[in-house]
Amino acid sequence: MSTILGIDPGLTRLGVGVIKKGAGRLVSLVHVDVFRTPAGDPPEARLGALSVALEAVFREFRPDIVALERVFAQHNVRTVMGTAQISGVVLALAYAQGIPVSMRTPSEVKAAVTGYGRATKHQVGTMVQKILGLDSIPQPADAADALALAITEAWRAQAPEVHRTGTTPAQQAWREAEARAKRPKLTQ
Amino acid sequence: MSTILGIDPGLTRLGVGVIKKGAGRLVSLVHVDVFRTPAGDPPEARLGALSVALEAVFREFRPDIVALERVFAQHNVRTVMGTAQISGVVLALAYAQGIPVSMRTPSEVKAAVTGYGRATKHQVGTMVQKILGLDSIPQPADAADALALAITEAWRAQAPEVHRTGTTPAQQAWREAEARAKRPKLTQ
Repeated sequence: MSTILGIDPGLTRLGVGVIKKGAGRLVSLVHVDVFRTPAGDPPEARLGALSVALEAVFREFRPDIVALERVFAQHNVRTVMGTAQISGVVLALAYAQGIPVSMRTPSEVKAAVTGYGRATKHQVGTMVQKILGLDSIPQPADAADALALAITEAWRAQAPEVHRTGTTPAQQAWREAEARAKRPKLTQ
Repeated sequence: MSTILGIDPGLTRLGVGVIKKGAGRLVSLVHVDVFRTPAGDPPEARLGALSVALEAVFREFRPDIVALERVFAQHNVRTVMGTAQISGVVLALAYAQGIPVSMRTPSEVKAAVTGYGRATKHQVGTMVQKILGLDSIPQPADAADALALAITEAWRAQAPEVHRTGTTPAQQAWREAEARAKRPKLTQ
């Protein structure tokens, strides 16, 4: 049984979804939440508050892996910069705790849970509800998206594409161990 | 005398420059460094290593304010995403330590130290050398840029535009105190 934390990054709404992965495709809900920060607050206050909240989630659920949505710069520029900033915070926090991170694109997640890379938010939410056997669709969409990220990771964890390095799982494990060992070292 | 930390953000090269501000326009060099991470490393390893290095700088020099370059999305998309990610880490770290952050655009910094918003890297480096009374131009350019950011902040610190909130210094001080007080609280 491994614990997977899915994170849908954002400053206005940040979704976190924790699931347990059992045998085969069996997954179960552990925790889901959405953190919000006021749009009028300075960026450092928003990032600082989210950083504290995320650290608490990492500490409470001790995930074996974090599945983080990969951000693209094609969309709204202002939103993307904030999303990239909080993604940086997630990546640094996970690294500090020795937790590997898997970056997943939205279309990859949609394809994994609905079978269709251009599925609507509602389709994703409906499938998340079914897969986890929930009474209703997790709300808001950021909550469902975070769980969909975790499910995608659970169903693909054995595939060699984790970290998208094109290496085998064994090579990847070695690389991670090596990276952890040299963590505080910087090239000069 | 206040201590100002300038940060030129980047994953490949991150410049840090620490100066002391005396009376009037008097500024003096305390510390300058450039941290580098290998382009081939996974983003979490690069952000994690830089986060550790930055935290050590914050702890050693205890700056009164951090001057961080404001990133725009117009440039190279891949570079900008990495720069936004490490900027997010800087903002969250500074906030965790209660240090205010001032965001400055490159043209603002060039105008402050050379009098010309479109100055070349060499002109900026030459002026940084003169202003701080150094034997040579700080190398690489990221080192000079970090110091230029700190100088810009030193020379503008009294202006009400810090944090770009359009408030008076008193209002700003109140807002900062309020933000610090409610740091770990998130709106639900």
